[in-house]
Amino acid sequence: MSYFEQFMKANQAYVDLHGTAHLPIHPKTRVAIVTCMDSRLHVAQALGLALGDAHILRNAGGRVTEDMIRSLVISQQQLGTREIIVIHHTDCGAQTFENAAFTQQLERDLGVDVHDKDFLPFTDVEESVREDMALLRQSPLIPDDVEISGAVYDVDTGRMSEVKA
Amino acid sequence: MSYFEQFMKANQAYVDLHGTAHLPIHPKTRVAIVTCMDSRLHVAQALGLALGDAHILRNAGGRVTEDMIRSLVISQQQLGTREIIVIHHTDCGAQTFENAAFTQQLERDLGVDVHDKDFLPFTDVEESVREDMALLRQSPLIPDDVEISGAVYDVDTGRMSEVKA
Repeated sequence: MSYFEQFMKANQAYVDLHGTAHLPIHPKTRVAIVTCMDSRLHVAQALGLALGDAHILRNAGGRVTEDMIRSLVISQQQLGTREIIVIHHTDCGAQTFENAAFTQQLERDLGVDVHDKDFLPFTDVEESVREDMALLRQSPLIPDDVEISGAVYDVDTGRMSEVKA
Repeated sequence: MSYFEQFMKANQAYVDLHGTAHLPIHPKTRVAIVTCMDSRLHVAQALGLALGDAHILRNAGGRVTEDMIRSLVISQQQLGTREIIVIHHTDCGAQTFENAAFTQQLERDLGVDVHDKDFLPFTDVEESVREDMALLRQSPLIPDDVEISGAVYDVDTGRMSEVKA
């Protein structure tokens, strides 16, 4: 059985517990969380979120990219969120490479020229949270009265620690 | 108390349950899940994922963008995933607007000219899954032997239904 089939089977059990209920499309807390794709972070559990509470946006590193801004604009201007929380984490994949070596590896293994592409690695996880909070504050598409907070998640202990801007 | 403070407080309880354990940075199932930021989808619960099982990537709509490809390349070439599952869902925010009216609204409310920007709305949720599966198959940065599956999640019942390419 493929993992896709296994996940679909697990979903059948989830459906039995879920019941039928229509929650509003607008997140209850009006919060959007920007974080990493890492497999050791289950955002809803780690922050005590119920279904319907908050938007959860995840890419490699939890970085503020053009696509993250696109998503946040929809989250805010179409679906009513007014607060953003940026969460990066310890032992991140974005800390395991540098652009120069990684793009060379891709050119060798995939045969694609990506030498001008920034894969957004970082070294200091608190600094990367501060950088991304600053990018949000600087974006003309994010209103000035949107509250922006930051934190680092420890993948070994599950603990979130606030990062001040 | 702000929501950020509430989430940090909820996290303290999570830490007590979590204990200390170091899971590998490489996802156990070698699966990356591409899905939407929607607040009514808790991916790990809905698919029975344990901590460490799979990468979870989320943007507005669960669309395959340049940033999604950046993240998937890191997921695959740096962290070993070999399978992608694209999941869109019913009652999606990406179905609530069209680019022309939305960009006019942003220009009016935020004073920013975004008339050439595609916010990636869609109308048919199965068709959007198929479109994004096709984008993945066409990308030179995603190897041909990567398994790609698709599904639609029903936000009212919690049920996933497979979408064939």
